[in-house]
Amino acid sequence: MLMTAAGYRESLRRLTPRVFLNGAAVTSVADEPRLAPGLNAVGVSYDFAHTAENKRLMTVPAAGGPINRMLAIDATADDLLSKLEAVRLLCKEAGCAQRYLAHDAFNALFAATKRADDADSTSYHQRFLDYLADAQARDLALGIAMTDAKGDRSLRPSAQARPDAHLHIKERNAKGIVISGIKAIVTGAPYMHELLVMPSRTHRPEDSACAVACAVPIDAPGVTIIARAAGRSGDAAAKFSAKYGQSTAIVHFEDVFVSHERVFLAGECEAGGYLTTCYATHHRHSCIGARAGFGDLLIGAAGLMTEANGLDPEKYAHIREAMIELITITESFFACGVAASVYGMRDTAGCIAPEPVFANIGKLLLATKIYDMQRLAHYLSGGLIVALPGPDEDHNPETKASLAAVFQGRADIPPEHRRDVARLITDLTASDEGGWYSVISLHGGGSPEAMKREIWRNYPVMEKMELVEKLLGRGLVRAKSDKQPGRCCEQGCETPEAAAEDA
Amino acid sequence: MLMTAAGYRESLRRLTPRVFLNGAAVTSVADEPRLAPGLNAVGVSYDFAHTAENKRLMTVPAAGGPINRMLAIDATADDLLSKLEAVRLLCKEAGCAQRYLAHDAFNALFAATKRADDADSTSYHQRFLDYLADAQARDLALGIAMTDAKGDRSLRPSAQARPDAHLHIKERNAKGIVISGIKAIVTGAPYMHELLVMPSRTHRPEDSACAVACAVPIDAPGVTIIARAAGRSGDAAAKFSAKYGQSTAIVHFEDVFVSHERVFLAGECEAGGYLTTCYATHHRHSCIGARAGFGDLLIGAAGLMTEANGLDPEKYAHIREAMIELITITESFFACGVAASVYGMRDTAGCIAPEPVFANIGKLLLATKIYDMQRLAHYLSGGLIVALPGPDEDHNPETKASLAAVFQGRADIPPEHRRDVARLITDLTASDEGGWYSVISLHGGGSPEAMKREIWRNYPVMEKMELVEKLLGRGLVRAKSDKQPGRCCEQGCETPEAAAEDA
Amino acid sequence: MLMTAAGYRESLRRLTPRVFLNGAAVTSVADEPRLAPGLNAVGVSYDFAHTAENKRLMTVPAAGGPINRMLAIDATADDLLSKLEAVRLLCKEAGCAQRYLAHDAFNALFAATKRADDADSTSYHQRFLDYLADAQARDLALGIAMTDAKGDRSLRPSAQARPDAHLHIKERNAKGIVISGIKAIVTGAPYMHELLVMPSRTHRPEDSACAVACAVPIDAPGVTIIARAAGRSGDAAAKFSAKYGQSTAIVHFEDVFVSHERVFLAGECEAGGYLTTCYATHHRHSCIGARAGFGDLLIGAAGLMTEANGLDPEKYAHIREAMIELITITESFFACGVAASVYGMRDTAGCIAPEPVFANIGKLLLATKIYDMQRLAHYLSGGLIVALPGPDEDHNPETKASLAAVFQGRADIPPEHRRDVARLITDLTASDEGGWYSVISLHGGGSPEAMKREIWRNYPVMEKMELVEKLLGRGLVRAKSDKQPGRCCEQGCETPEAAAEDA
Amino acid sequence: MLMTAAGYRESLRRLTPRVFLNGAAVTSVADEPRLAPGLNAVGVSYDFAHTAENKRLMTVPAAGGPINRMLAIDATADDLLSKLEAVRLLCKEAGCAQRYLAHDAFNALFAATKRADDADSTSYHQRFLDYLADAQARDLALGIAMTDAKGDRSLRPSAQARPDAHLHIKERNAKGIVISGIKAIVTGAPYMHELLVMPSRTHRPEDSACAVACAVPIDAPGVTIIARAAGRSGDAAAKFSAKYGQSTAIVHFEDVFVSHERVFLAGECEAGGYLTTCYATHHRHSCIGARAGFGDLLIGAAGLMTEANGLDPEKYAHIREAMIELITITESFFACGVAASVYGMRDTAGCIAPEPVFANIGKLLLATKIYDMQRLAHYLSGGLIVALPGPDEDHNPETKASLAAVFQGRADIPPEHRRDVARLITDLTASDEGGWYSVISLHGGGSPEAMKREIWRNYPVMEKMELVEKLLGRGLVRAKSDKQPGRCCEQGCETPEAAAEDA
Repeated sequence: MLMTAAGYRESLRRLTPRVFLNGAAVTSVADEPRLAPGLNAVGVSYDFAHTAENKRLMTVPAAGGPINRMLAIDATADDLLSKLEAVRLLCKEAGCAQRYLAHDAFNALFAATKRADDADSTSYHQRFLDYLADAQARDLALGIAMTDAKGDRSLRPSAQARPDAHLHIKERNAKGIVISGIKAIVTGAPYMHELLVMPSRTHRPEDSACAVACAVPIDAPGVTIIARAAGRSGDAAAKFSAKYGQSTAIVHFEDVFVSHERVFLAGECEAGGYLTTCYATHHRHSCIGARAGFGDLLIGAAGLMTEANGLDPEKYAHIREAMIELITITESFFACGVAASVYGMRDTAGCIAPEPVFANIGKLLLATKIYDMQRLAHYLSGGLIVALPGPDEDHNPETKASLAAVFQGRADIPPEHRRDVARLITDLTASDEGGWYSVISLHGGGSPEAMKREIWRNYPVMEKMELVEKLLGRGLVRAKSDKQPGRCCEQGCETPEAAAEDA
Repeated sequence: MLMTAAGYRESLRRLTPRVFLNGAAVTSVADEPRLAPGLNAVGVSYDFAHTAENKRLMTVPAAGGPINRMLAIDATADDLLSKLEAVRLLCKEAGCAQRYLAHDAFNALFAATKRADDADSTSYHQRFLDYLADAQARDLALGIAMTDAKGDRSLRPSAQARPDAHLHIKERNAKGIVISGIKAIVTGAPYMHELLVMPSRTHRPEDSACAVACAVPIDAPGVTIIARAAGRSGDAAAKFSAKYGQSTAIVHFEDVFVSHERVFLAGECEAGGYLTTCYATHHRHSCIGARAGFGDLLIGAAGLMTEANGLDPEKYAHIREAMIELITITESFFACGVAASVYGMRDTAGCIAPEPVFANIGKLLLATKIYDMQRLAHYLSGGLIVALPGPDEDHNPETKASLAAVFQGRADIPPEHRRDVARLITDLTASDEGGWYSVISLHGGGSPEAMKREIWRNYPVMEKMELVEKLLGRGLVRAKSDKQPGRCCEQGCETPEAAAEDA
Repeated sequence: MLMTAAGYRESLRRLTPRVFLNGAAVTSVADEPRLAPGLNAVGVSYDFAHTAENKRLMTVPAAGGPINRMLAIDATADDLLSKLEAVRLLCKEAGCAQRYLAHDAFNALFAATKRADDADSTSYHQRFLDYLADAQARDLALGIAMTDAKGDRSLRPSAQARPDAHLHIKERNAKGIVISGIKAIVTGAPYMHELLVMPSRTHRPEDSACAVACAVPIDAPGVTIIARAAGRSGDAAAKFSAKYGQSTAIVHFEDVFVSHERVFLAGECEAGGYLTTCYATHHRHSCIGARAGFGDLLIGAAGLMTEANGLDPEKYAHIREAMIELITITESFFACGVAASVYGMRDTAGCIAPEPVFANIGKLLLATKIYDMQRLAHYLSGGLIVALPGPDEDHNPETKASLAAVFQGRADIPPEHRRDVARLITDLTASDEGGWYSVISLHGGGSPEAMKREIWRNYPVMEKMELVEKLLGRGLVRAKSDKQPGRCCEQGCETPEAAAEDA
Repeated sequence: MLMTAAGYRESLRRLTPRVFLNGAAVTSVADEPRLAPGLNAVGVSYDFAHTAENKRLMTVPAAGGPINRMLAIDATADDLLSKLEAVRLLCKEAGCAQRYLAHDAFNALFAATKRADDADSTSYHQRFLDYLADAQARDLALGIAMTDAKGDRSLRPSAQARPDAHLHIKERNAKGIVISGIKAIVTGAPYMHELLVMPSRTHRPEDSACAVACAVPIDAPGVTIIARAAGRSGDAAAKFSAKYGQSTAIVHFEDVFVSHERVFLAGECEAGGYLTTCYATHHRHSCIGARAGFGDLLIGAAGLMTEANGLDPEKYAHIREAMIELITITESFFACGVAASVYGMRDTAGCIAPEPVFANIGKLLLATKIYDMQRLAHYLSGGLIVALPGPDEDHNPETKASLAAVFQGRADIPPEHRRDVARLITDLTASDEGGWYSVISLHGGGSPEAMKREIWRNYPVMEKMELVEKLLGRGLVRAKSDKQPGRCCEQGCETPEAAAEDA
């Protein structure tokens, strides 16, 4: 049953998570103003599923009626492309839609549970399917608890001074497992229905307690959420983030019991690594759509600012050049998402995943180019934004006329229009919120080094070497036992955090 | 009827073009060693149409039997993608396959002749269809004569000191037209069957004599071809270009008569401009596939060199990093070609063209990144290539042992293998031939400024501005008469050369 | 007499500027907490002049005792280099020291007043010298009121709908002039002793009323300052900007009277343009030193974060690579400042200015690379900073242990040390304050297009063309009347804002 | 006694080196046309020492009369700057002047021999001084034999399959030493008077036989030179390299005896490593000057081409932009050379070396930006150069008129002028010779990874960390025993080739 944003908000009232925000407990998530932009943003993913123009992209037909695309398993390349477009659609409205995280986790769990079962005759896959059907039916909002606190980055989980640096299985009993540990970056945690716990890397046998995946109700005993405000509710200068934003939270699991039917992996290192990788691939693909939507906002805002400044890009080559560069950045990483969809790879479980080289390249590009996008937005906005007084000044009769003269650009555009676009650009690119967008773009879904590892691991370098060997008219001298270039060695695989979440 | 490379070569013997090469006339194109790499490269496009593994990509089913994809009209997004892949396939074997130029011109003529007919009740479209059917049936190799000599770049055609700076209609009579002028860069000209003459920009009424498109046999009276050698035939150091290469030629048309049934435009400025733009879009899309194939060669060669140097990319981060960057460059511009295919735009004539923003971005990226590809190839090859003696030294008994000691890298790889890969990299990236590849990548299909113009002209900036206006909670204040940002003004359209050819 | 920071603060109490901040009037600038970081930062420039290790750089010997280098006229290349180093010294402590603006303006006024006198037999130079001596003696803090509000950027001053879009002479009388207009970005305005009004571009005769330079006491009748807070006083999360920051203010001059002895230009367009250019050159040179100091802070913070994460750059190539890139960026633009000093150009007035090509290149580089610096700082910090709770959480007993586990990296470094470095990086690069630093770097001292114009205008392109002509063995065919490439045409000079201020 | 170019050429006739070129022995180096551009280029360094306008830069006063700056020991920062400028001066005339290599080696030997003596009570320094005085007096041309053949890059010298992969001391006797091994890239070898043998890295004790430095006459028994042609003598299309170019040669030393007075190190690993590093620092500094001179040539050529195309940079923003980018690249790496001079570091031996961070950054920048310089040169030249027929066509009466029409740009500039500039750009950037310039820029003086190592090793990261610690109000918690960040570990030092030579 597809919920609406209103229904989603209402549903949160039935939950009692333990949430701290700025040093105090939150009594009602649904009514907490500092979380409202988060609920609004998630709400968009619910409401768009009901609007005539977005319904096709936002939902997927299913036996029991349409389900939200953000909870669907991809079966075809076209599904991947539709998901990519749907994410862009949501994010050009809401900045970060959060709910594609559930999509990414579901698709990864679908594949990895099957793999675990095939290897070890476990029965995780069916358990997961049951959970999936229920989550789709209830149209849940799900947080992804993946990135561990990690501690000393040069040491493996079991070598850390504090055991909670990585979430792990502390105890197993007849009914289920008991988990403990800290997940450091959980987007949207306070206003989720449940959390999906996932491993954040491939583990070695000695760390197998960390290879755990399961579903935990947001208000399960032992779960503590330490959250940041979502956006900048109530800040009139925050033209975007007063309305939409995401909370990123630290989630501490202290002896949390999870019953068997909600456990999808419990110690299987190989399948756990596969789960992490699958999730990362899906998620990097989603990030591409998300940041393209962010690009749409910047392109539009820069266009408005340029117009208000009286600078016609047709006549001012340096302005046009900057607009084109902004467009080129946005669409070139989006193109990688399209290619990853078109060349999607079918898993033995029957689902399809984005082609990993393209997905990782797209994410790698956006991760670094988000800073160029900021630069271009600033270039196009002009220097006004460093001297822009805040909204408290808007109604000061003693300064009103002065400010109107400062904000006035092209004579036929009201000064406050130009001021508001300047504030919007500030909010998106030169503020606490803008900083959040840049860092989440860089590190969300794993840091650049993790993407590079995946590109290298998946690229058929050997095939190209053979092409050249043939051209040079000789057979390959390489012995069969030679290590295949392009395949990641044991040592190499350990270094990068395979994937962190994002927003 | 699909020809083979051998049949193609034979067919050239029946033609008598007037060709000059290095100051002397060429008596038989088919037997001229300095053109052999060109015939070889074009030959690949013929032979691949017959091989089991490539047939599917290289041919298109048609009523009268399969035709070569390089001569087909695209009807679906999948056709565009197949063409893109086919071009990459050809170019990773032959460097530059030349024949996609005919594809690009045919698709553009298909659309533009229809447009001219719709506007002016002419009957160019049927004429073209007849010509097309014949060219497909005879499986022709066609040169594209587009880039005019141009003269002073700040002046329009009719203002040039020398009238032949642009090809133009000099005379019209009952049977056809007489054309004169110089086309400055015609890839593969000497070993083509015919030339397709195309306008290289949109013309104003006073220059309408230049808005001409027609087909001219390669040995038509009045056609003179001043060619450069194709590749470096006979040069043992040229591990690639001794085998494959393209001649770029200057073609002078002096009072060449073209009968009506071979004339596809003759003075229609608007349709001529459309033809140029359509061609440019198709061609930039093809360039993407071509240079991705070139990237495949570099990746393979760099992989071999790294291996021979004893540097395992798993262990040497800076080597792996460079390999990944080379891969990222290649696949990120290729992704733009994929996206341009997926979002292909149907023309009113019924054919489909690549989406122009993605196609232009892809070409823009490769145009500048070809230099980074060279840099990375050199980075990975090491400094050896500046001191590498030529093949004359290979059999000198007095230096043989010294050279073996220099060429020896990893002990189990023969020294001459490492030497040959070094020569291949030199040939592709640090030689006369390498220079050709970089410049043709930069300027072929139009220089970067032309791409930027097209990106700007086609991007829906106004749509994004409206998105942001809505977000800011206000209607658009813009009057209907306001110029649409993102639409190219008359003045702006004149500057760039809309498209030049490429290889 | 060299003041101390304490003396400076005290001196502000004797002034009564009309200042608005966040919608309300400021009653005592010296006691306003939201301006305190600004006073602190300016204070550093006073106190460092007294410390043993900084005295040599921070002061210049003069007849009446040492003066602050920030108020001195440069006489030698070594003076330029010392100033550059002094600015870096101040800014690596205080982020933005503000006071080099006075240096830049004084040196420009020194040259431009001489030039005006030489051209028009005026006596501005002596007037300025008198003012200078007084300012040095009183060790003043001076704000630079240069960047006009501008209005529609496509129209010249006299064509604007609102005349106050540019500051201009409204009236001249026997005792002085009356000026009106808005200066849009005045760094540090509220806590200055006086303002130096300067033209922000070259003007045409019809706009000559805007070619005005003069000194105005901060509390002159008719001066209104609309300021933003300086830094983020009282915000415990703001590890840097709670202590140091700059206010950027809008300053409205409404019928402000300036007596003749304080007027340094009044309608001289040519000298006004020269003044703008001279200021820009000095100021871009100063910006280089300033942002190199900012780079020092980022390098240090990134080093601490890497250490706390347990990632030894010797072992983790991608970490080392990022550190090296951060260093390379910082030192390569600083090197341009050094070169601009070494090749400093003597003015006919007797002072010396930085060589303009190097000064502009250095500023151009930092303007765009500040975004790469942010990217690298984030890359090195890791993703922690998006989930970092604020200081309100620091003492919450219910979350304390959880947070300690998140903040703990290397076991021997206290968790709160890692947390604080993360906060510092957030403050400097991913916050409102970080946004300010990036935009001020991009647009301060003029936007990149202005730098490019200056590089072009000053570079001896013709000389290099002659070199190549000679190499080709032929004389220059160019007629004497040919326009010299590299010299900016009338039309070209109008476009860019010649210079804006900075921080 | 300062020689002239003519005297230098004559002096070569008195030597009888064993040189092979293209498979055959060279009987007279002075008369071999394929080496003539090399002699010309070296000759410039001799002749410029005699011309009135260059004398000041090109010579250094000494007791016995002026000596060539290319053979002088630097005593002051000003010496470093003069050398930098002198190298630029030579290279903008001759492309690569070669002789600064001797300067770099001499300065390094001056410092390293002193260091060896101080450590081990040897007497290398005085030996070297005697040799130096003689070399200066005879105004020798000296080749630097540094880069070893290396073999498998993952193995140390003593572990190589072929012992000659690294030059080493094979025997020691009463009169001197006997050396064997291959030096792979010796610029200008055939037309040198002597070779200076240098170690190409720091060695471990087991490889101490490779830590050898000595001087060997070019025609010493056992020395074989396998050379490539210098430039492209006799090729009329090679507008630059027909005149000037450098041979890069492989030099095999087979049981070459060197008497004690010519041996400057013989097994001292630490001093050998220091020698390599010192040489690298000096040489990278010289490379900066050299490539800035190359930049001058490109800027001039691009200016001429733009002019001939009729494109006034004032009117065409994209042309101006590209010119400015070319200038910015050239002058920003040159600025690093200036800064390295200004902050030069005095050695305990009494000489001065360029500051290593700036020197390495400058070289690192040029190494990668040479490819951007090529791109910009091509961008500005337009596509003509891919279709430009060779000189054989110049006098063909049948094509003459056609070609004139193609080459004609701006009406008042003769077509052959435009053609020749196009050929010059091709020669410098899109030819075998252009390839040589790019690879030598990338790898000469060590590859980018080597520069990065040096930047890291020399940068005071710890100092900046302390700055930030202080700002955060806490002392350093770091134990004294902690490894100093910024100091290269043993393991790290091994990877990079410390320095290769260049041209």
